[in-house]
Amino acid sequence: MEKKIGVIRGDGSSPEIVLEALRVLQKIESLFSHHFTFEEIAMGGAAIDKYGEPLPQHELEKCLACDSVLLGAIGGPKWEGLPGEKRPEKGLLKLRAGMKLYSNNRPATLWPQLADASPLKKEIADKGIDFVVVRELIGGVYFGEHKTFIEDQEEKAVDTMPYSWHEIERIGRIGFEMAQKRRKKLCLVDKANVLDTSRLWRKVLQSIKEDYPDVEYSEMFVDNCAMQICKDPSQFDVIVTENMFGDILSDEASQITGSIGMIPSSSLGDGTRGLYEPIHGSAPDIAGMDIVNPIACILSAAMMLRYSFDMEKEALCIEQAVHRVLDAGYRTQDIYTEGMKKVGTKAMGDAILEAM
Amino acid sequence: MEKKIGVIRGDGSSPEIVLEALRVLQKIESLFSHHFTFEEIAMGGAAIDKYGEPLPQHELEKCLACDSVLLGAIGGPKWEGLPGEKRPEKGLLKLRAGMKLYSNNRPATLWPQLADASPLKKEIADKGIDFVVVRELIGGVYFGEHKTFIEDQEEKAVDTMPYSWHEIERIGRIGFEMAQKRRKKLCLVDKANVLDTSRLWRKVLQSIKEDYPDVEYSEMFVDNCAMQICKDPSQFDVIVTENMFGDILSDEASQITGSIGMIPSSSLGDGTRGLYEPIHGSAPDIAGMDIVNPIACILSAAMMLRYSFDMEKEALCIEQAVHRVLDAGYRTQDIYTEGMKKVGTKAMGDAILEAM
Ligand SMILES: CC(C)[C@H](C(=O)O)[C@@H](O)C(=O)O
Ligand SMILES: CC(C)[C@H](C(=O)O)[C@@H](O)C(=O)O
Repeated sequence: MEKKIGVIRGDGSSPEIVLEALRVLQKIESLFSHHFTFEEIAMGGAAIDKYGEPLPQHELEKCLACDSVLLGAIGGPKWEGLPGEKRPEKGLLKLRAGMKLYSNNRPATLWPQLADASPLKKEIADKGIDFVVVRELIGGVYFGEHKTFIEDQEEKAVDTMPYSWHEIERIGRIGFEMAQKRRKKLCLVDKANVLDTSRLWRKVLQSIKEDYPDVEYSEMFVDNCAMQICKDPSQFDVIVTENMFGDILSDEASQITGSIGMIPSSSLGDGTRGLYEPIHGSAPDIAGMDIVNPIACILSAAMMLRYSFDMEKEALCIEQAVHRVLDAGYRTQDIYTEGMKKVGTKAMGDAILEAM
Repeated sequence: MEKKIGVIRGDGSSPEIVLEALRVLQKIESLFSHHFTFEEIAMGGAAIDKYGEPLPQHELEKCLACDSVLLGAIGGPKWEGLPGEKRPEKGLLKLRAGMKLYSNNRPATLWPQLADASPLKKEIADKGIDFVVVRELIGGVYFGEHKTFIEDQEEKAVDTMPYSWHEIERIGRIGFEMAQKRRKKLCLVDKANVLDTSRLWRKVLQSIKEDYPDVEYSEMFVDNCAMQICKDPSQFDVIVTENMFGDILSDEASQITGSIGMIPSSSLGDGTRGLYEPIHGSAPDIAGMDIVNPIACILSAAMMLRYSFDMEKEALCIEQAVHRVLDAGYRTQDIYTEGMKKVGTKAMGDAILEAM
C-alpha cells in the first residue's frame, strides 16, 4: 500500500524519538512491501521559530493532505514566556481541532517486563493495570470562550466549558464500542453533582447505552476516580470522559504504570486520518543526549498502522519486537532497573529494528 | 471559654462519627473547663427529608450564629435521583458560600502507624507524605453560571469558570502564610497553557510572592501534578489551587496516604468561624453497623479547637490521644491490618476518650 505520513519532529528531545519511529516505519515498508512517503510538518516550538506561530494554516493543510500524522512532543522553556495564542501548545490544540480529532485514546497498561516500575504496591499492580482513557479532545473548556477583562476596576477572567449532545454522543459511542472489544465495561467519569455539562453527559450516555446491552455501564465522579486509579486500577476497563478530566486522569493513569516513556496514544475523528503521539512531553532537559526512550513514539507508529491503515500484522510486528527487546533486558534509563542492559535512544531503536 | 458549636450530623453513617466527635468535645469541656453549647443543624439529605430542601435559609442562619460548625458527611443513594438544585451536595455548596468559606485546607499526611496502608510502594511512601492542598472553595466553575438549553434543535450545556483578582489573592496569601509555617514551599497548580483563569492565578501569585521572600514558589500544570502526587509526593509542602482542581487533587492526595478515614479538613473565611469535616463521604452502605472510622471527624473537631477557638493545648490533647490509641493497636476495619485490634466506631471513640 501507498501511504503519505505527516511527520512532526517536535521540540526538545522529540526529534530523536521520531527518528527511531521513522526507521521502524521504513523497516515495515521493506518487510511488507508498502510504500510510505513522509511529509515534514512544522508545529509547536519549531514552527514558532520558523514561522512565528505554532501552526500556520499551510502546515495544517499539509496534515489534512496526509493519510495520517505522527508526532513526537512539543514545547519547552524557550517558548514559555510567550502569550497564550503564540505558545507551542496552541499549535497542538489547533491541529486537533483542525483535523477534527474528537477522540483521544490513551491506554494505561502495565508492561509485564516493567511491573516493578509502577509506583503502586505489588499487591495492587499484580491485580493488573489494563484500561483505556477515552478522552473527548476538541470540546469543553479547551475550546470554550476565554476572557480576561477589567470590571469594577478589578482584573477578572472567565473560561467557559460548553458541550452539545452530538459532541458527547459520538465520543460516547466510541467508548462503548471500545468496551465491546475489550472487557465490556464502560465508566463515565464526570462531576454531575456540580456541572450542567456533566449532567448532559450522563443523559446522553444513558440514552445510548441500550444500543450496547453487552457493556456494563457505570458512572463515577472525577474526584473519586482520581482516588480509585491509585487504589484499585484493576477495576477499570474503558473510562470515557470530557477533555479536561481526561487530561488529568490519563496522566495519572499513565503514571501508575510507571512507564510513561512507553505509552502511545491515538487521536481520531470520523475518518481514518489520525494523529499519533507519545503521551510524554518533549523532555528538553535531556535533548541531544541520546537517552530519551523512543518506545512510546515507536508504539504510536504501530497504532497508526493499525487504526489508520488497517495494518494489523504490521502493527503486531512492531509491538512484538518491543516485547522481545524488553524480554532481552534492553532498557533506556527511564525504565532501567538493576541487572538490565542500559541503552541509549539509538541503540534501543537498533534493537527493535533487529527484533523485527 | 464559652463556645457555641453548630452540629450537622449528616447522612448515612455520618451521625455515628459525629456522635464520637461530640463525646470528645464534651471530654475537652470537662478537662479544660470550657463550656460548649451544641446547636443541631439540618443540612443535606436530612434537611431534604425534613424541609424539602438541602439547606433552608433558617438553617444557614443558625450556622452564622455559631462560633464554628462541625459536619460529618452528607448524601446517599436515597437522594440521588433529585434535580441538581435539590440534591444534598447543593446544601454543602450553599453552606460554604453562605459562610463565605473561601479557604479549604486538606492535609495529606501519612500516619506512621499506618504507613503500610498507602497504595504506594514503600520506597516512595518512606520519603514521607506530608503536604496540604489549599483549595479555593467558593469560586470557579462551582459557582459560575450553569446553563442547559436547546439551540438549533440540539441540547447543549455550558458551565462557566470565573475568577477575579481578589478571590485569588486572598487564598494565595493563605497558601503563602501556611507555607511559612511549614517547610516554606508553595506550588500553584493550574492549567495556564489552556485557561485564562489559570493565567490570572499565575499573575496574582507572582505579584504577591515578593511579600513572602522566605517561601520557595513554583508553578505546575494540573495534569503533571496528578502524576507527581503518585510518583513522588514528598516533593510537596503546600499546594494552592482553584476549586475544581483542588477537589480532584486533594482526593488523590488523601488516597495515597491510604487512610481516608483519618483525614480532617477545615474551611475558613476571613473570620475565625469555620466549617470542619472529614474529607471522606457519608458511607451509607455501612450506616448503623458501628464500623465506620470516627477518627477523621474527631480530628476535625480538634482542628476546630485550634483554628477557630485558638485552643492549641486542647487540640493537641485530642491528637495525641489518637496517636496513643493507634500505637496501642486499635484499628477500625478500614485501617485494619493483621495483628492489630479490630474495633467498632463506638469502641474507637471510647479508646480515644480513655487516652485523653
Ligand atoms: C499541551 C497541553 C495543551 C495538552 C493538553 O492539555 O491537552 C497535553 O497536556 C496533553 O494532554 O496532550
Ligand atoms: C459533594 C461535592 C459537591 C464536594 C465538592 O466537589 O466540593 C465534595 O466532593 C468535596 O470535595 O467536598
